[in-house]
Amino acid sequence: MVRVALDAHGGDLGVEAVVDGAARVSLEGREVQICLVGDVKEIHASLVTKRYDPAWVQVVGADGFVAMHENPKEALQKRPNCSIITAARLVADGEADALVSAGHTGATILASAQAFSLLDGVRRAALAAVYPTENRHGPKGDPFALMLDVGASVNVSADDLVSFAIMGSAYARIVSGNESPSVALLSNGAELNKGTATIVEAHKKLAASSVVNFFGNVEGLDIPKGTVDVIVCEGFLGNVVLKMLEGVSEVVSDIARDAYARKFLWRLGLTMLSQGLRQLRTMTDWKQYGGAPLLGFDKVVIKAHGRSNPRAIRNAVRVATKAVEGDLANRIRTDLETLKVGAS
Amino acid sequence: MVRVALDAHGGDLGVEAVVDGAARVSLEGREVQICLVGDVKEIHASLVTKRYDPAWVQVVGADGFVAMHENPKEALQKRPNCSIITAARLVADGEADALVSAGHTGATILASAQAFSLLDGVRRAALAAVYPTENRHGPKGDPFALMLDVGASVNVSADDLVSFAIMGSAYARIVSGNESPSVALLSNGAELNKGTATIVEAHKKLAASSVVNFFGNVEGLDIPKGTVDVIVCEGFLGNVVLKMLEGVSEVVSDIARDAYARKFLWRLGLTMLSQGLRQLRTMTDWKQYGGAPLLGFDKVVIKAHGRSNPRAIRNAVRVATKAVEGDLANRIRTDLETLKVGAS
Repeated sequence: MVRVALDAHGGDLGVEAVVDGAARVSLEGREVQICLVGDVKEIHASLVTKRYDPAWVQVVGADGFVAMHENPKEALQKRPNCSIITAARLVADGEADALVSAGHTGATILASAQAFSLLDGVRRAALAAVYPTENRHGPKGDPFALMLDVGASVNVSADDLVSFAIMGSAYARIVSGNESPSVALLSNGAELNKGTATIVEAHKKLAASSVVNFFGNVEGLDIPKGTVDVIVCEGFLGNVVLKMLEGVSEVVSDIARDAYARKFLWRLGLTMLSQGLRQLRTMTDWKQYGGAPLLGFDKVVIKAHGRSNPRAIRNAVRVATKAVEGDLANRIRTDLETLKVGAS
Repeated sequence: MVRVALDAHGGDLGVEAVVDGAARVSLEGREVQICLVGDVKEIHASLVTKRYDPAWVQVVGADGFVAMHENPKEALQKRPNCSIITAARLVADGEADALVSAGHTGATILASAQAFSLLDGVRRAALAAVYPTENRHGPKGDPFALMLDVGASVNVSADDLVSFAIMGSAYARIVSGNESPSVALLSNGAELNKGTATIVEAHKKLAASSVVNFFGNVEGLDIPKGTVDVIVCEGFLGNVVLKMLEGVSEVVSDIARDAYARKFLWRLGLTMLSQGLRQLRTMTDWKQYGGAPLLGFDKVVIKAHGRSNPRAIRNAVRVATKAVEGDLANRIRTDLETLKVGAS
């Protein structure tokens, strides 16, 4: 049995969507115990309107939560028993195996940093994004690839990039069942001497080791194509790139919506094309695959997208379960040790 | 009269497309003298098949050219009288006012660096890309924004970013007729403390000066939206971002092509949607607006996209002409001096 501490608050769709997602999981007959953390009254008020299996759903009370517009550091100081801190504490205390939240990203990272320990050899945690690509990945033909760090890391070292590569690779192995995921560094050219001095150094280290299936450098155009299974970069770059993908998605939607409003023939055309457009939307609207792992800690943390609907919450819980079952943290620990032994 | 030295070689569509573009310009009744530089026999063989006004087209011989797959440095050393060097020399010697090439980007930058001088106060030249956005820009409602550097600069300083901002602003003023183009730094958050130390410092400098209409920081999603007229970033980042836009464009085309091939109803739908799809293609296929200025030199240099067709070549020549008529280099020089005086 896997036990997931699920922050009930902070998502754009409110407690309702999170509770609904938990209720769905409870009916799926998987051995997943969900602990909903937050305002007990609000959670119960929502739970009673749902079909769910009470054997698999618990509720743990917490005092307030971090809203999207808040400064996470100040909010956590002000409310030391808020939902994300309480949920993280459950995991740290061994009451739960994984933390899942659709709330404030910065608060999730900070609360994790306070409650959990970084694995030996990891200097910085990394937030990884799952995003859809043209190419398929792994034995199950997943249409998603992984990119990390997309958090806030700047001035990363070559060793940081190497540990990101190891963490991303371990995650793809466990969650996508991809035995040997290909991993690349994001740079401005495929040649090994392209990019910053840090990238060039990380390239050398990864090429010299066999801990990950290192592809080499990839360029910007390889991101939407999905040339590799895992793309590694500094958080600053990953953040800009990911937000740009989101921007492209919104622009495409705007244009489609305009076209739809405009005239009957276009509407007819759009109806005929619905399958193709759905495919295009899948490609551009990466937000629906909300489960972004926060990697580098001794515990499993999945950050669901703020806009997560019940299905996305359920997917995030499922991904967290897989990561726990695959013993993600130990896998990363072992790979980091193998690298160290190989290098010394 | 503006005189443009046009490298006839190196474009993906060969001498034919470049000569065709030059022939078109010659018939437009603008006072633009084009000097086609390259293999005289090949150029003439192509010219005789076109309608053109011989009064506005000259041919200057050169010895070989740099092919796309070549290392530019080695190629230029091996062929010191190749087309790009000869064309740059014409500009340096005052025989022409601007250099336009659809050939090897690296070779164009290197040949320019050898033949021209950097303006006072400019430590690095920057390659700027014109790309289509959802928002319109300037009094003419241009659907394009400018991003620089998209070349190969790494480890830029805050002063480099400031000079990129000044150069991009001057270019947008002259070429788009936009009196006060908005300029922003690309970062991982809008707040002034977001990004690398270099970005934070450049932000302070730009905010303290009134030489450019400084908007602040923008994020990845502002790139396709076109929130500002000019986006400034390190070349490494600009390169990744631009190539990713190209990749997204290709993925969208692939999906549309698949849909097209698949069935009759889809084909019918696509036909009905043709106008909307054209709009989408305009948005994603930035390559057709090939004129990327290389900024920071005392001469005007326009790098047309390698895939330029005759229309794109003609557009690149027109943009070069505008830049010469607007006295681009002096405009940048003046703005850099104003900044210096303001700072001291």
